[in-house]
Amino acid sequence: MSFLDRIAECRRWAPDDYRPFTIDDRPLGRVSHDLARRLEDFPQVFRVSGRAVGLAPSLRGFTARTAAVAEVLHRLRDAGEIRRWRDEPYPVLQRWDETPLMIMERAAVPLFGLRAFGVHLNGYVRGPEGLSLWVGRRAANKATAPGKLDHLVAGGQPYGIGVTENLIKESAEEAGLPRELAARAVPVGLVSYRCAREEGLRDDVLFCFDLEVPADFVPENADGEVESFSLWPMARVMATIRDSDAFKFNVALVILDFAVRHGILGPDDAGYEEIIEGLRLTSDA
Amino acid sequence: MSFLDRIAECRRWAPDDYRPFTIDDRPLGRVSHDLARRLEDFPQVFRVSGRAVGLAPSLRGFTARTAAVAEVLHRLRDAGEIRRWRDEPYPVLQRWDETPLMIMERAAVPLFGLRAFGVHLNGYVRGPEGLSLWVGRRAANKATAPGKLDHLVAGGQPYGIGVTENLIKESAEEAGLPRELAARAVPVGLVSYRCAREEGLRDDVLFCFDLEVPADFVPENADGEVESFSLWPMARVMATIRDSDAFKFNVALVILDFAVRHGILGPDDAGYEEIIEGLRLTSDA
Repeated sequence: MSFLDRIAECRRWAPDDYRPFTIDDRPLGRVSHDLARRLEDFPQVFRVSGRAVGLAPSLRGFTARTAAVAEVLHRLRDAGEIRRWRDEPYPVLQRWDETPLMIMERAAVPLFGLRAFGVHLNGYVRGPEGLSLWVGRRAANKATAPGKLDHLVAGGQPYGIGVTENLIKESAEEAGLPRELAARAVPVGLVSYRCAREEGLRDDVLFCFDLEVPADFVPENADGEVESFSLWPMARVMATIRDSDAFKFNVALVILDFAVRHGILGPDDAGYEEIIEGLRLTSDA
Repeated sequence: MSFLDRIAECRRWAPDDYRPFTIDDRPLGRVSHDLARRLEDFPQVFRVSGRAVGLAPSLRGFTARTAAVAEVLHRLRDAGEIRRWRDEPYPVLQRWDETPLMIMERAAVPLFGLRAFGVHLNGYVRGPEGLSLWVGRRAANKATAPGKLDHLVAGGQPYGIGVTENLIKESAEEAGLPRELAARAVPVGLVSYRCAREEGLRDDVLFCFDLEVPADFVPENADGEVESFSLWPMARVMATIRDSDAFKFNVALVILDFAVRHGILGPDDAGYEEIIEGLRLTSDA
């Protein structure tokens, strides 16, 4: 089974390529050695040693940390060293229910290997032949993963909005889902992974939702980020995930979780336990 | 939230109380120091050192291992040192899809801290007020967990029968479910845990199934192991799990997984990630 290849892609990173990033001596992320050397230029903000990068201890509290780091990040952006600036504030924390230690621009979060959160919606239809899943194709001009297959709705989880509220907002923007329909989405757990990507070290928790949509519902993209939507029988979805990397790397993971929860994979299938184990990290992984 | 107390109970064990149990130098289980000393009486079968207990290397192959260990276990049973003999063959393996290294009597599996597998069925009804769960009360004379609250169907997974087939068989024995109804149960994943119990060190993987039963269905116990069944609204189930240990320890874990998958807990609830992390071990945990 090469479902496991999709999982392996979500777990590919080399610990030796990074040193820990700490706040108040608490390890929260990982910084590449190149970036660590660059951060030596900002000794008022970053305390860089050969073994770790820490926020300067003089930076105490949410506001001071946020402002000092933002100033450095703006300089790196202006020097062309941070691309795809998003202007989206992300909280710095290990679990979503914690008080954030500071805010950081989304584009910088993987550069520091910090945990990020997202929402993914499995929009499905239940028919006489079983389940079908709404699949989007990402626009060819999208900055990340152009042309890859995607969920009906998926997005990052910024600071200052609840997870469910964010899902409802993204559902309107990305697929034209009316609020009444999106509000029926059921939270069904999470997947998590850590992997090296072009944008840095992704350390993500994706909150997963299922939404059974009416058979006559047709999604409509409002923000130009999706080229087209189509409804795929689960057998086609699973074969595509097994045999190709046509789905965006983390979308494949969320769909494998969907397949486990809906009995499309079962305990008499080879690799069942290994697949389930691959869907989530533990805190010490 | 004391949902986390229920999870903690499923993870309570002290590594220092055991030494590894190996077959061909592969660590598969854990033996208490007391049992290790007792096994020194059987040097043809067990190679005991201060650091580990291994099967004697002369015992090569499934049949030789199974026969030699069974002889020792029968002697321990006859000496009153293994209680609650079940006469149920369990496979010795780490994952259900592996080829078993040998067969061992079920009652001995936790004495060697070996992985065991089981099936649990969430039998639920969907009503206008939300989900309700069928809850059984274990007979007062049951050897383990008398009087505790249980699933509609739950049982061990012996050698020589598929997981789904075993669920259907247990469903008939424990709750009088006709085969046509039980066959509609949906495999929805697994929970796993390791904890010290009266019977030894449990290292269990429970394959979970959901079955929406008709509103007019009433379960009937056939084997005398269940005192009564009743249908509980999920709010009552969740409050009971949160505030008491009335549910059997591992049943609470499977129901927390059910609550996560059905949106009874959600990502904006405190402790959500910690609960999900507590539902499953990783291979290195």
